[in-house]
Amino acid sequence: MSSNTVESDITPLPTMTIHDFPKGPYPTRVRIALAEKDLQSRVEFVMVDLYKGEHKKAEFIAQKNYSGTLPVLELDDGTCIAECTAITEYLDALDGTPTLTGRTPLEKGVIHMMSKRAELELLDAISVYFHHATPGLGPDVETYQNPEWGYRQRDKALRGMPYFNDVLKQQSFVAGEAFSMADITVIGGLVFAAIVKLPVPAECEALLAWYARMRERPSVRNQPAFA
Amino acid sequence: MSSNTVESDITPLPTMTIHDFPKGPYPTRVRIALAEKDLQSRVEFVMVDLYKGEHKKAEFIAQKNYSGTLPVLELDDGTCIAECTAITEYLDALDGTPTLTGRTPLEKGVIHMMSKRAELELLDAISVYFHHATPGLGPDVETYQNPEWGYRQRDKALRGMPYFNDVLKQQSFVAGEAFSMADITVIGGLVFAAIVKLPVPAECEALLAWYARMRERPSVRNQPAFA
Repeated sequence: MSSNTVESDITPLPTMTIHDFPKGPYPTRVRIALAEKDLQSRVEFVMVDLYKGEHKKAEFIAQKNYSGTLPVLELDDGTCIAECTAITEYLDALDGTPTLTGRTPLEKGVIHMMSKRAELELLDAISVYFHHATPGLGPDVETYQNPEWGYRQRDKALRGMPYFNDVLKQQSFVAGEAFSMADITVIGGLVFAAIVKLPVPAECEALLAWYARMRERPSVRNQPAFA
Repeated sequence: MSSNTVESDITPLPTMTIHDFPKGPYPTRVRIALAEKDLQSRVEFVMVDLYKGEHKKAEFIAQKNYSGTLPVLELDDGTCIAECTAITEYLDALDGTPTLTGRTPLEKGVIHMMSKRAELELLDAISVYFHHATPGLGPDVETYQNPEWGYRQRDKALRGMPYFNDVLKQQSFVAGEAFSMADITVIGGLVFAAIVKLPVPAECEALLAWYARMRERPSVRNQPAFA
């Protein structure tokens, strides 16, 4: 049977499960990494409804991710890898050809620094603002809010935008002259900025031009976050 | 001249500068990584006085680290690498034999996850407590404090200790059966816990036993934080 023949030509690959919320800024980071590495076909996405607080349920915290956040990569043997940087390191190393996390010591160092900086100064700051100074995921999920801290972090993110604009005046990508995990993290930040209605100021021309270029990449433009 | 002969036998190595505060929990992470990689002799340490707020000065932020934190690794050409994870990635890759950040995709993923988790759930949480709900670095440096957020983060860290205790009941090291960057991050957390007088509860026997083993390692016990 020809259908069998076709199937036998396909090398069976282990599958991976991503515990996911398709439009979420952090899940979008891992979705972009998967697309950059052409690994989407090996992944099964399982929806975890943030607005129902499914990521804060005792079972999820005990079995998937102690920190109660998305996304989580689950391997065939049940091993769970949480945290976007960790998942990206795993995915990028799978084929032995890292394209997102750096090859040389200098590339690794600078990419990790700029990705962490994009978390501290933009993405994570906006996340705190969302969860603490806006309705966030709703009163059933946001059981503790500290609005003053939320606004403080919003202001930090608003300073982060001109910072990354200055970086992108000097170089083509966030960590130098090649696309990397650090670009993905800033994209995550700007995805979240749009959700909370903190648009990039028009004077951040280099950041806006970079973002337009990023959204032309198939790995980025096809994400649910941009639908 | 014999002194010249001796000198010519030594391969000149590029030196690195670490902007450092010797007893600081974050600088201690990089100091341990340097010792594990036997790289101390290539490093010149430059003191940045946290209690004088030297890390928040405009010049430091503009030239060394936008985020205004220590440590920062500065290379011969002036490139600055901030963030402990990024510096550790750089140092670990220098000799082509990563021992701290993982060799396989799985090792890389799990080490990065556990190191990030040690930041989120222990080290960074204690840092926020220190800066927001204690005198911290003093009134001249701590120009904004949010004590409620600080206490919230202290409580998170107090939950983190039994979590890592549970991890260390199952395995010898934080990320599995080998010493890694994730152990260094938890060590940083417990260094900071001692500074703010949040001792590890006696019932966290596995965590305490692991910490005693860690402090037997020359890379750890010789640090100024333990002097």
